[in-house]
Amino acid sequence: MRVSFDELKTEIKRVFLKYGLPEEKAELCAQIHTESTYDGVYSHGSGRVSRFVDYVKKGWVDVNAESTLEKDCGAIRVYNGNMGIGICNAMAGCEAAMKLADEYGIGMVGLKNTTHWMRGGSYGLHAASKGYIAIMWTNTESVMPPWGGKEPRLGNNPFVLALPGKEGERPVILDMAISQYAYGKLAMTRLAGKKLPYPGGFDDEGNLTDDPAPIEKNRRILPIGYWKGASFSFMLDLLAVLLTDGIGASDLDKKGQGSCGGCSQVMILIDPKKTVDAARMEEEIDKAVAHLKSSAPSERGGRITYPGEGCNAFHKQHDEQGIFVEDAIWNEIKAL
Amino acid sequence: MRVSFDELKTEIKRVFLKYGLPEEKAELCAQIHTESTYDGVYSHGSGRVSRFVDYVKKGWVDVNAESTLEKDCGAIRVYNGNMGIGICNAMAGCEAAMKLADEYGIGMVGLKNTTHWMRGGSYGLHAASKGYIAIMWTNTESVMPPWGGKEPRLGNNPFVLALPGKEGERPVILDMAISQYAYGKLAMTRLAGKKLPYPGGFDDEGNLTDDPAPIEKNRRILPIGYWKGASFSFMLDLLAVLLTDGIGASDLDKKGQGSCGGCSQVMILIDPKKTVDAARMEEEIDKAVAHLKSSAPSERGGRITYPGEGCNAFHKQHDEQGIFVEDAIWNEIKAL
Repeated sequence: MRVSFDELKTEIKRVFLKYGLPEEKAELCAQIHTESTYDGVYSHGSGRVSRFVDYVKKGWVDVNAESTLEKDCGAIRVYNGNMGIGICNAMAGCEAAMKLADEYGIGMVGLKNTTHWMRGGSYGLHAASKGYIAIMWTNTESVMPPWGGKEPRLGNNPFVLALPGKEGERPVILDMAISQYAYGKLAMTRLAGKKLPYPGGFDDEGNLTDDPAPIEKNRRILPIGYWKGASFSFMLDLLAVLLTDGIGASDLDKKGQGSCGGCSQVMILIDPKKTVDAARMEEEIDKAVAHLKSSAPSERGGRITYPGEGCNAFHKQHDEQGIFVEDAIWNEIKAL
Repeated sequence: MRVSFDELKTEIKRVFLKYGLPEEKAELCAQIHTESTYDGVYSHGSGRVSRFVDYVKKGWVDVNAESTLEKDCGAIRVYNGNMGIGICNAMAGCEAAMKLADEYGIGMVGLKNTTHWMRGGSYGLHAASKGYIAIMWTNTESVMPPWGGKEPRLGNNPFVLALPGKEGERPVILDMAISQYAYGKLAMTRLAGKKLPYPGGFDDEGNLTDDPAPIEKNRRILPIGYWKGASFSFMLDLLAVLLTDGIGASDLDKKGQGSCGGCSQVMILIDPKKTVDAARMEEEIDKAVAHLKSSAPSERGGRITYPGEGCNAFHKQHDEQGIFVEDAIWNEIKAL
């Protein structure tokens, strides 16, 4: 299915209004879901509408809740998300962090007791498109074993780094989960009868495997960089807890209100105008990208891209042919 | 060889004084090199003394330079390291960032034009032991290919996250390079006639390999998480440049003054007392560690440890038997 941006957004907004979101929140959420889809991040755009509605129906997301300020201290603010809509809480947190960065050069917002923010990159892109450098992450329930263990005890804790692009260009952005692959990727690969491009977890005998099926069952997915990612994930969870006065993976597991229900998010924003002038910033971005791309290509072919550049191909395709939405997903949204 | 902490420190300090370091700088550097060795990070402690001296002799490190304040704006300060001693510059930067965190809750120090800080974890440990949460990184010259390329264009850009441990315990700390393995680890593995525990790079035909020899030659080491770590490394380099007004991997390559000669470092410190009370902090650290360790062990055996816990075994061994220093390294230091 191919639809226009407006068509997709209008349909998603209709659903959100139907399930009780106030006008302003429905508008923001529909915009963010549609932007993620337009950027090619289907899993967190069109692909998350029905799950969000499911959470609303179960009472796991309070569509009327507003985040409330709990701590206000210098360049730090901590908000309680009150189990409101993840997108709305995170966007409000991002706006508050921008104001802190304006005032102090750097500012941090901690957001606890919130719900799934969908695509973490949305907030990195938002901040970077307004001229800020962003360091952001969320904790999640346990989905990944610790190094040396075989039961899930670590979140995949998406981590975002973003910086403003050159004048008129999109931000440079890294938006990564700490697991090597998402469970959704494992399922898609299995359904396609394929193997993962690189090992994605351990089989039941504890051997690395590129077969997604056993990993989906035993949940022994790999963190990026093996022991390194396992430690990174642990730190992101514990830091999120301490910087928001929120709850960590073990308590999120116990709470059991879906993915990220009650999670904590950290948003650190910096105003780069305080450290580098605009001309030099553009020059250094150009230089870094040119340096990256000056490498001879590997045997596997494909282009060398900078973080975030992948969106451009999706934009071109979506502008020319309409935004891609899987038929099943489109029918699901239409039926809501 | 086994030596006491004082013996090792005294010997390293003697060398540093001989090569022109002022008393105070020699004392600090000897302390940091000895602490790294005591913590079991031999590669960046005893193992880096002779290389540091080599850099001093080549004029790549100015042993008398002091860092100078270039920008002072709210909770941000940027210093020029003036190609002085990396340890001294980084420790001064860390102290300045602590003062900013005291005043604003969060503070950032950017340090440009500095030299190798040795073990990044030293500054994370220092800050965390004083009660701060630390996010720190450095850029480096190009040592790793971009994803889809085969020539080094990315730094391994060590990245540090640290938080205060429980009362009387050591900090919880992640100190990782973005490459899966260090070149030193490849060399040691090759010399031992062994294979890497997991693939560490690509061979000359572009296939993943756990044989260290071809990777050492072709320099096609893997970033953690394949394409994810490649993007992470790129972001850390460019962010370091923009947040310090410093230079990136391509210019560090051109400068050619050894590993990290002229690099940029970022230190973001946060005072967690602003976000969480001390009792809850201890409780949450306990809870996170207990949750991690509650996983059934994998078939490979070994203990599940939290980030930084590995030091404890080294301390016990070093306290009981003296600090381990390779004979060749000890002789090298003695001969300097």
